[in-house]
Amino acid sequence: PVNANRIAEDIEALAEITEPGHPWTRRAFSPLFREGRSYLEARMKAAGLETRIDAAGNLIGRRTGRKPWLGTIMLGSHSDTVPDGGRFDGIAGVIAALEVARALSDQSIELDHDLEIVDFLAEEVSIFGVSCIGSRGMTGQLPESWLSRVSGGLDLAGGIAQVGGEPGVLAQQKRPDIAGFLELHIEQGPVLEAEREDVGIVTAIAGITRIEITVEGRADHAGTTPMDRRADALVAASQLVLDIRNAAAELAKTPGHFAATVGEFRVEPNAANVVPSKVALLIDGRAEIRADMEAFCRWLEGHVEKLATAYGVRIEAPTRVSDNLPTPGDAGLLSALEAACERVGAKYRRMASGAGHDTAWIAKVAPAAMIFVPCRGGRSHCEDEWADNDDIAIGAAVLFEAVREMDTD
Amino acid sequence: PVNANRIAEDIEALAEITEPGHPWTRRAFSPLFREGRSYLEARMKAAGLETRIDAAGNLIGRRTGRKPWLGTIMLGSHSDTVPDGGRFDGIAGVIAALEVARALSDQSIELDHDLEIVDFLAEEVSIFGVSCIGSRGMTGQLPESWLSRVSGGLDLAGGIAQVGGEPGVLAQQKRPDIAGFLELHIEQGPVLEAEREDVGIVTAIAGITRIEITVEGRADHAGTTPMDRRADALVAASQLVLDIRNAAAELAKTPGHFAATVGEFRVEPNAANVVPSKVALLIDGRAEIRADMEAFCRWLEGHVEKLATAYGVRIEAPTRVSDNLPTPGDAGLLSALEAACERVGAKYRRMASGAGHDTAWIAKVAPAAMIFVPCRGGRSHCEDEWADNDDIAIGAAVLFEAVREMDTD
Ligand SMILES: NC(=O)NCCC(=O)O
Ligand SMILES: NC(=O)NCCC(=O)O
Repeated sequence: PVNANRIAEDIEALAEITEPGHPWTRRAFSPLFREGRSYLEARMKAAGLETRIDAAGNLIGRRTGRKPWLGTIMLGSHSDTVPDGGRFDGIAGVIAALEVARALSDQSIELDHDLEIVDFLAEEVSIFGVSCIGSRGMTGQLPESWLSRVSGGLDLAGGIAQVGGEPGVLAQQKRPDIAGFLELHIEQGPVLEAEREDVGIVTAIAGITRIEITVEGRADHAGTTPMDRRADALVAASQLVLDIRNAAAELAKTPGHFAATVGEFRVEPNAANVVPSKVALLIDGRAEIRADMEAFCRWLEGHVEKLATAYGVRIEAPTRVSDNLPTPGDAGLLSALEAACERVGAKYRRMASGAGHDTAWIAKVAPAAMIFVPCRGGRSHCEDEWADNDDIAIGAAVLFEAVREMDTD
Repeated sequence: PVNANRIAEDIEALAEITEPGHPWTRRAFSPLFREGRSYLEARMKAAGLETRIDAAGNLIGRRTGRKPWLGTIMLGSHSDTVPDGGRFDGIAGVIAALEVARALSDQSIELDHDLEIVDFLAEEVSIFGVSCIGSRGMTGQLPESWLSRVSGGLDLAGGIAQVGGEPGVLAQQKRPDIAGFLELHIEQGPVLEAEREDVGIVTAIAGITRIEITVEGRADHAGTTPMDRRADALVAASQLVLDIRNAAAELAKTPGHFAATVGEFRVEPNAANVVPSKVALLIDGRAEIRADMEAFCRWLEGHVEKLATAYGVRIEAPTRVSDNLPTPGDAGLLSALEAACERVGAKYRRMASGAGHDTAWIAKVAPAAMIFVPCRGGRSHCEDEWADNDDIAIGAAVLFEAVREMDTD
């Protein structure tokens, strides 16, 4: 039912709107981001959609239904990227959503529901250090304190205003009209490709828990301090990294997606001839099943105490700097997606999302679910991120069928 | 024979010439460094010494002997500091040397040899990223390429010229007149204090070998990439840090000082939700016995290959970015120092220096040796570095006696 060439053309056009020398970078709030949106807006208009920017700075294309009192079926994802990556992450979902609207027009299908195609603002961690601005903001879930986060002389309120939003009214945002929300996204993992499946129906979006730990030893002269008289923070932190990896690998073997990664690791004073005095590290934990995360955190608290004693360093109790619960997909929508896969003839599996998505925020106020399409080698957030256009087209067709199913309810 | 109060007064006065809020910082080439030198020059003059800056930017106070053809007895150390540390590191040796000259004058002792008191330029790693500028430069051992190293718009040649040196003639520097060189320094380690000894007679200055290793894994999405499909550079590098520590601790148990420290450790991309793709680390190795360093490097080369296989990462062969041999103290001077300790009644031990010193460079062209005095807790290169004035005075007395002994030869 959808046109794969049209999808390819749009994704290609957006890919070309990138920082030269840094493919494929289109950072939220940048001039390039606004250029990408101009393209999207023009394509929305060409598809007969009425466009607007909502209070949270989301770009929305709207098509009125025959019975608008039934509410809005919403499809979308995000067009911003991480630095040096994101040729398909987000944008594949925006274009697939747009293609559904075009396919409906092509076939002169009128829906009972209103339909909205959304490009959410700043899903990725942006210059303001936080993510999912648009999906949180649209649904009254953006913490007010975030509006004053500053980067390069601009605050987030100013950034939202610059793209056409209205930061002053975000606390009052609600979208009680959303009858159902669907997002297509690349898997950003290796499973679908490895299993030669077309579509992942996302049963749950893993909760993300970020945990900060500081290991404090003692700075000593690296030349003169005997090996057995040191309190080397890097040595203790290295043991911690290995132990975290092993604990996470064990939890990953039990049912439900689990991962924990030390992504940030900063050593002080980080000087050639000084025994490291301090390491600050940040753990990124993901759990489909909340009990796994609680078990991990309990283990971690006890374990750092043991390590501190063993290595003669101080380790403060781990701090959860952010902690989100897993978000299950809406049961009705999961069934609709399954039926849609059957109709399209797509080979699918139910699976969890290890990554966070706008869908998790919309799911707090409305029925929401998402599907994955395969991506090469499971690679994402890097230059070589790649999804085959035929796979995206299959996903778009599934969205199309699911929308038709949602509209009959 | 020496005046402890005079030593205390000078060390106190120099300590006050520091960056406010960053005790005790007097970085080479800074205005504060030049201010410290003005004080030193005035004190040298007050002690009846004739002052000059040599081509390498060293501040020298000279006293002519009765038989100048016998050559020069040289005493000295350095007045520059690391950032946020160095109340005694270096400066104790400069002031002790100056005190020897004053004590000789007090007692109207004329030497046969000429005597020079030296404040070497930039012993510490300076803004130009290299160390021992003055002692290398005085003896024709400063690599010419270093002169064009740039920091904040200034090159090293310009820096040397600014303090009164003559960078253009450094290649021709030789000091064939040095009959013997002695340096007093704080131990920067815990041994003398723990053993309640007054003086360490330094049998050898450990060779310093700096080894660079890069661990390359693969950047992956931390949320979606299963634990068993990662090539996490931080996990592999953490194992390497622990293995290096254990290998060094084993070598430290055999005769001869040995230490190895991972002091610099940089993670890329160092982002919360990305599996680390790269870690660059720098090992600082110290060996009193060269064979220990060779054994360590051999072990390391084989070990990184094994780690690379075990963790699915790439680790290039370790690179020795610098590699200095151990420097033994001059046997005759070690005996003279021992005799001097006996005369002063100082409790002493023979021991190695784990730290590098200007003495190592002078030793390449002349008989040279050094002594240590205790420092509290073995702490150095930090704000709480401390040496008791009485201990410095005992060391100065040992220098005084050793100079008298050297002069009789
Ligand atoms: N989908 C995605 O990459 N989201 C970014 C947030 C995260 O999961 O780390
Ligand atoms: N003595 C001293 O701290 N020298 C600095 C060079 C080193 O040994 O690391």
